[in-house]
Amino acid sequence: MVYKDLSKEELLEMKKELQAEYEAFKAKGLKLDMSRGKPNKAQLDLTNDMLDTVNSSSDMTASDGMETRNYGGLTGIPECRKLMAEIVDVDEKNVIIGGVASLTLMYDYISQCMVFGCGGNEPWIKQGEIKFLCPCPGYDRHFGILEHFGIKMINIKMNADGPDMDSIEEYIKDESVKGLFCVPKYSNPDGITFSDEVVRRFAALKPAAKDFRVIWDNAYIVHDLNDTPDRLLNIFDEAKKCGSEDMFIEVISTSKISFAGGGISAIIASDANIAEIKKRMGIQIISNDKINQLRHARYFKNLDGIKAHMKKQAAILRPKFDTVTDGFEKAFNGTGIASWKKPNGGYFISLFVMKGCAKRVGQLCKEAGLTLTTVGATYPYGIDPDDSNIRIAPSYPNVDELQKAVELLCICVKLAAVEKLTEE
Amino acid sequence: MVYKDLSKEELLEMKKELQAEYEAFKAKGLKLDMSRGKPNKAQLDLTNDMLDTVNSSSDMTASDGMETRNYGGLTGIPECRKLMAEIVDVDEKNVIIGGVASLTLMYDYISQCMVFGCGGNEPWIKQGEIKFLCPCPGYDRHFGILEHFGIKMINIKMNADGPDMDSIEEYIKDESVKGLFCVPKYSNPDGITFSDEVVRRFAALKPAAKDFRVIWDNAYIVHDLNDTPDRLLNIFDEAKKCGSEDMFIEVISTSKISFAGGGISAIIASDANIAEIKKRMGIQIISNDKINQLRHARYFKNLDGIKAHMKKQAAILRPKFDTVTDGFEKAFNGTGIASWKKPNGGYFISLFVMKGCAKRVGQLCKEAGLTLTTVGATYPYGIDPDDSNIRIAPSYPNVDELQKAVELLCICVKLAAVEKLTEE
Repeated sequence: MVYKDLSKEELLEMKKELQAEYEAFKAKGLKLDMSRGKPNKAQLDLTNDMLDTVNSSSDMTASDGMETRNYGGLTGIPECRKLMAEIVDVDEKNVIIGGVASLTLMYDYISQCMVFGCGGNEPWIKQGEIKFLCPCPGYDRHFGILEHFGIKMINIKMNADGPDMDSIEEYIKDESVKGLFCVPKYSNPDGITFSDEVVRRFAALKPAAKDFRVIWDNAYIVHDLNDTPDRLLNIFDEAKKCGSEDMFIEVISTSKISFAGGGISAIIASDANIAEIKKRMGIQIISNDKINQLRHARYFKNLDGIKAHMKKQAAILRPKFDTVTDGFEKAFNGTGIASWKKPNGGYFISLFVMKGCAKRVGQLCKEAGLTLTTVGATYPYGIDPDDSNIRIAPSYPNVDELQKAVELLCICVKLAAVEKLTEE
Repeated sequence: MVYKDLSKEELLEMKKELQAEYEAFKAKGLKLDMSRGKPNKAQLDLTNDMLDTVNSSSDMTASDGMETRNYGGLTGIPECRKLMAEIVDVDEKNVIIGGVASLTLMYDYISQCMVFGCGGNEPWIKQGEIKFLCPCPGYDRHFGILEHFGIKMINIKMNADGPDMDSIEEYIKDESVKGLFCVPKYSNPDGITFSDEVVRRFAALKPAAKDFRVIWDNAYIVHDLNDTPDRLLNIFDEAKKCGSEDMFIEVISTSKISFAGGGISAIIASDANIAEIKKRMGIQIISNDKINQLRHARYFKNLDGIKAHMKKQAAILRPKFDTVTDGFEKAFNGTGIASWKKPNGGYFISLFVMKGCAKRVGQLCKEAGLTLTTVGATYPYGIDPDDSNIRIAPSYPNVDELQKAVELLCICVKLAAVEKLTEE
């Protein structure tokens, strides 16, 4: 039954039933958290053996003879650069190994652009108001960086094949528009992978600003969930064809491959951008943790090692994603009050509830003991103009907990919808 | 014989002999490096067992129940904050654990002050030309950060008990003077520890700039070489008496305790400064490497563990420092052409040669196969106004190599002096 076609009486009847179901759930005193894309214990355990890869009897020398325990090696040890280069399919010389978080690589790059500019242009901080385009729903920490630096954010619609390129092509005619962040594969939170056409249109962008930068946050590049994974074009291959390599800054990390609390990250960029990044990094650090680089390189060895490992990760995650999407299908099919996409990878499911209901859903869930990602957080400034999007992070709870959480969530989505439809 | 009292004939005779000695050394084709304060292999081996502290069968839970392998814990795990707090003797709440390098903590803090200001004041970048006071000779990487951000550097003389406080007290009357970097214990390169009076005068500073910051780089806080170590007052204890805690940002690291290529660092600050740093860090990172924090906390346990470990480090380093200072005494006593201080700790020996001769010494050494820290690097902009200071880093070479290096260096110092004295 499509909710909006029901009569007021039918809706009020339904509301009574939903309220009873909700109160019953509330009485159970649950305490569930689906707020962040956090790996769960079983996933972390998968990489425990890596901790044995480097021990007191290990040869601590990198492949180029560098002593990993000592100073030196600003850009990372060769075997680790090679591993990360294989993952993104670029030349090793275009890879710099970072610390534990790609977030830091992105923050530091934006900070560098603010204070020193990029591509030899004027520092952003000296150019008056500057703007970034924000495909949304998107990753709250990207928006966090932009807000922190006072960069004005402009919402860009996400289509089924990536950001709305028509509007991006229009906005970049404005020289004060300096860039955008995106997650091109299994986007956070929609799980959308940019189509070939979208990637090619990105590569072909001709922004008015010479210092326009696309932060290509390839967080889920090897994070497939099933045997029909999405395929993303290599942005640097496409950029080369357009001579636009300097426009792209790619980052990846092993946060959701090895350990979120002890992984490594990498920044991938054109020769010119690598030179600018190295110039700053050479003042900021002598090298990132080379022992952890050695650990990762020796444990995973190569792309095949990474892929084999990610199959184990997928085996743990897949049933959780299924639990959520199965629950949604069961609850929402034919109701017309919610939509979502079942992703082939990544860490999130993006649920769109009836317009104007998302905050109410978040509140209802919270009062019944289920913490969701703060509603609105998937949009710039925390404002979802439709008050509709809810980000579901299924990785952390176990399947049983998840089942309960989804059941509760579905009740709340329905209740909020019925409340809305019966509003005076 | 005091060189400057010798006759021209005597000097020319000596020059001939020194040239012969120098050429003999050159013929040996040495390749020695004393340029950086790098631990040597035996020192690194001391900490190898730490790599076994955390392995695949370890409990990976921090003392507060946090899973170190996962996200979370912006300020560091409690046992690691406690360890670092014990080293500097402050409350744990005033300690944030960083990544592999205290250099990054300092860079990021200066960057934060530039873009966001500190203490709620206007960003430095918006205040026109700003200046830092630079006790020198000093640490080239401090000067590097300042030059990178375009902060004007003003030389401050180092006295035997620390920076010349008279001139600092005078300069800070200028509101555009925003701070200084210093190494208060076993200063780089002089090995000077600030006297109680100097520390107290620091704490009592009343700068015109409300956003004046002293970066207290306590890099060698536990790096004593012998049983008569220097003693440094706790800057925060003294600052409390003057209500000036907000003026000080202290940093330490385990780079020269555990591994330069895989250690941890910490930033220590007042409640107000910690709040500002956390606000920025919360955008920049989710947490630093908590597994490495666990490794360090479990291995060293507490300050006693650190102290016991540093005695082993000292046993390796002491003979090297002795080799250098013994060599200097033998070569220079009574010549009046060089001065130095035998430090009780730290990583460097600072040699002052005859004015106008340091660059020539560097050149002579280089041509004979001995690399020194670039002459001038111990001063802002790489300019030693007296062309006199040479930083000796004795840690990396072994004692035999060091003996040769010092012998060669002494010949070069003498030769440069004689050249100078016989100049037309």
